Amino acid sequence: MKQSQLFTKILKEAPKDEVSVNAKLLVRAGFVHKEMAGVYAFLPLGLRVIEKIKQIIKEEMDELGGEQVFLTSLQDPEIWKKSGRWDDKVVDNWFKTKLVNGADVGIANTHEEPLTNLMKKYISSWRDLPRYVYQFQTKFRNELRAKSGLMRVREFLMKDLYSFSRTEEEFKDFYEKCAASYLKIYSRVGLKDYTFRTFASGGSFSKFSDEFQAISEAGEDTIYIDQKNKIAVNKEVYQDEVLAKLGLKKADLEEKRAIEIGNIFPLGTKYSSVLGLTFKDKDGKDNPVIMGSYGIGLGRLMGTIAEIFHDEKGLIWPENVAPFQVHLLSLGQNQKSEKLYRDLQKVGIEVLYDDRENKTAGEKFAEADLIGIPIRLVVSEKTLKENCVEIKKRGEQKTKLVSLKSDFNKLVEVRLQHFNVK
Amino acid sequence: MKQSQLFTKILKEAPKDEVSVNAKLLVRAGFVHKEMAGVYAFLPLGLRVIEKIKQIIKEEMDELGGEQVFLTSLQDPEIWKKSGRWDDKVVDNWFKTKLVNGADVGIANTHEEPLTNLMKKYISSWRDLPRYVYQFQTKFRNELRAKSGLMRVREFLMKDLYSFSRTEEEFKDFYEKCAASYLKIYSRVGLKDYTFRTFASGGSFSKFSDEFQAISEAGEDTIYIDQKNKIAVNKEVYQDEVLAKLGLKKADLEEKRAIEIGNIFPLGTKYSSVLGLTFKDKDGKDNPVIMGSYGIGLGRLMGTIAEIFHDEKGLIWPENVAPFQVHLLSLGQNQKSEKLYRDLQKVGIEVLYDDRENKTAGEKFAEADLIGIPIRLVVSEKTLKENCVEIKKRGEQKTKLVSLKSDFNKLVEVRLQHFNVK
Repeated sequence: MKQSQLFTKILKEAPKDEVSVNAKLLVRAGFVHKEMAGVYAFLPLGLRVIEKIKQIIKEEMDELGGEQVFLTSLQDPEIWKKSGRWDDKVVDNWFKTKLVNGADVGIANTHEEPLTNLMKKYISSWRDLPRYVYQFQTKFRNELRAKSGLMRVREFLMKDLYSFSRTEEEFKDFYEKCAASYLKIYSRVGLKDYTFRTFASGGSFSKFSDEFQAISEAGEDTIYIDQKNKIAVNKEVYQDEVLAKLGLKKADLEEKRAIEIGNIFPLGTKYSSVLGLTFKDKDGKDNPVIMGSYGIGLGRLMGTIAEIFHDEKGLIWPENVAPFQVHLLSLGQNQKSEKLYRDLQKVGIEVLYDDRENKTAGEKFAEADLIGIPIRLVVSEKTLKENCVEIKKRGEQKTKLVSLKSDFNKLVEVRLQHFNVK
Repeated sequence: MKQSQLFTKILKEAPKDEVSVNAKLLVRAGFVHKEMAGVYAFLPLGLRVIEKIKQIIKEEMDELGGEQVFLTSLQDPEIWKKSGRWDDKVVDNWFKTKLVNGADVGIANTHEEPLTNLMKKYISSWRDLPRYVYQFQTKFRNELRAKSGLMRVREFLMKDLYSFSRTEEEFKDFYEKCAASYLKIYSRVGLKDYTFRTFASGGSFSKFSDEFQAISEAGEDTIYIDQKNKIAVNKEVYQDEVLAKLGLKKADLEEKRAIEIGNIFPLGTKYSSVLGLTFKDKDGKDNPVIMGSYGIGLGRLMGTIAEIFHDEKGLIWPENVAPFQVHLLSLGQNQKSEKLYRDLQKVGIEVLYDDRENKTAGEKFAEADLIGIPIRLVVSEKTLKENCVEIKKRGEQKTKLVSLKSDFNKLVEVRLQHFNVK
C-alpha cells in the first residue's frame, strides 16, 4: 500500500502514560491506539500483524483437527452458576451488565462453560468423540490494574481451543500434540529461540498446567530454564519434588524473566460433570467427557514480539508476522519507484511504498526504522545513477546495491530470495 | 471436510422458542446456537458462511480505498458525553458495566465517537483527507425484545465504515460510490434481485439516509418499491414531497415487506464538531471534517439469505456464500467416494463429504437438503454400476449422471463448470 494513503502517522513522542516498551513503540509507530487503560484498538499496521498471527494459529489448529466456531460475548449467568464461577468471589475479574428487564448478563472472560453446555446438544455417544473446537474471540477481564502495554489488558483477542476426549489416554495424546503445535506456532512467528514449554501450577483448573514462556526482561514471570532440553519450570512450582518429577537438576537451571504467551490446561471432568456433558461408552455406560483448554492471546503475542525484537530505532518484525514484507522508500523518484512497487506486488510481495513527497530522506529512514518492516528498498537519484536500488535488512547495517537493468521484476525477486525474504 | 468429523448434527426438531424461519432452519441445521434470547453463537457451518460474507465485503471495502482497523468494545464514557450519547435517555440500548474501581464503562453499540476521537491524532491538514476507515467488530445493543431470529439481536458482528471528507462534494462522491459498492455486495451474496436502495429517515444522525432493503415477508419494514428504477421509499418517509423530490409516482410503486440489510448515513459535522476533529484548509482555516457512516450486519445478512432462499426441505445457499460448494454423499461406497472427495479438493472445490456409515440414504438426502449446499453429488452402487456419479442442484428436481471414466478429476471439474458452480 502507498504510505500517502495510510491514515496513521508516526507520533514524535511516546504518550506519557505508556511506560512499557511494547506500547511505546506500537503506539508511536501507529500499530495500536490506547482507548482506555488496558484497552487498545488495532490500527491498519497492527491489524495486519494480528491477522498474520491469526492465520498461522488457524493453520495449526486446523492441522490438529480443530473446528472453528465463534461463541458469544454476552453470557447467561445460569450456566456459570452451575460451575460456581458466576460468583465474583470465585472469579474476580468479571465484567457484568444487565438487560433492560434487569436480568444479569455476563461479558465473557472465558468460554469453558458455554461451550461445554453447547456440546451437550452434539455429544451423546463414544462415536461423537473426540472433538476439538476453537475460536478467535474477545475476552473481557476486569483487571484491577492494566499494565505492561499489550501484556495485561482488559479486552483482548484470544485463540481458545477446547478438547473433548473419552479417555485420559486420548486426552493426553491430544494435549501433547497441541503442545507440539504451540511450539510450531511460536517458531513460525519468530519466537523459536525464546520460547520454553514451562511447567506451572494449574490455577483454578487443575493442579498443574503447561505454560509457554518467552524469555524477556519485560516478563511478569520468573522461570527456571533448562537450555539443553528446552523446558522450564515456573517459580510458583519450583520445588524439589516437581524438579524430581520432571527429571531436572537445579544445577542445569537458569533463572529468567519471561512473558507467558500461551497455556494449556487439563480440565479433567470439572466442567463436564457439573454441566452434564456425558457420553455413553461401548457398554452403554454414561461417562463425563474429559476436557482440556488451550489458549493464546494474540495481542499479547504481538506485544511480546515487539518487546523482544526492537532496537533503539524501533521495531524489527520477524518476516512471517511483519505488516508488510518490504518497505520501499522513494527519495524524490516516484516514477521509477512506482514501477518497482507494482512489479513487486505482481510477484506477490507485500509492499509498503513510501511515496510521500513532503518528507525528507532522513524522516523516511527514521520512520521506516520505527515501523520495522524486514526489508528496506531505497530508490534515489544516487541509486538510479547506477541503475540500482539499495536493499537493507532491518536490524542490520549492511546495504547492498541491486541492479535494476531491464527486467525489474525477476531481478528483484531473485534478490529478495537471496536475502531470504520469501 | 468429512461430515463424520463435523461436531454439529442435524436437530430433529426446531427449538420451541424459535419462531422465525431463519433461526429455526439455522439452528436445526447446525449453523448457529442460541446462547440467550437475541444472542447466537456461530458453529462451523455458520461461521463458514459468515467468513464468506466477510471476505466479499472486505474486498469491496478495500476497493473503495477503505483501511481496516479493529476498535474496542470497552468504551470510555467521557468521549460519549461530549456527543451527548452516553445518556440512556438519548441512546436507550447501551450495555454498561463498571471497572473494579467503580468507574463506568460502556460496551460499544456503535463506534462513531471513538473513531472520530482517534482520528484527531492523524488528521490536521487538508492533505490528510479524505480517509475511509472500516472494521468488522461486534456491536452490543440492549434491545428490549430480541426477535426474528438473527434479525434483531443483542450482539452481532457488523462491518462499519466511516468516511472523513473535506467538502460536501467530496463526501457525496464517496457516499454514492459506497452505495454502488453495497449493491455489488448484495449482488455477490445472491440478493441482487431482492435488494432495493431505499430512501429513509436519518434517525439520530441526519434528516434522511439510505437503507438497503431486501424484499421478504419476514421483514420488519414496509417499503414502496419502483421495480423499473430499482429504488424504494421507506413507509416512514412515504410522503408526497419526498416522492416528488425523488421523481417517483405513487402509481409506479408497490408496497412490500422488507428486511433492512444495510444503511448509509450522512453524519455531516455532528461528531467532528463536538469532538474537535478539524482540518486546516489551503487557506489555513480550521474546518470540521464532514463524515458519513456505512453499516452492514453480517449475521442479519446471513439470516436474510436464509429467509429468502429456502424451501420446505431446508436451506438453499447461493453459491458465493454457501458453507461448501459441493455436498458429496457416499451411499455405502466410501472407497470410491473418498477418491472423488480428494480429487474435487485438488481442483479447489470446497466439499462437505458425507462419509458417515451409520446413516441411511434417506437420512443423508434429508440432511443434505436441510443444510442446503448448492451442488449434491451422490455415489451409490447404482451410479457406480454405470461408472457414474449423480449430480443435482439444490432447489431443483433434475438429476444427471456424470461418467467417472478414468480421469475423475478433470471430468468432474468440467461437469461442475457445466452446472455453473465455479
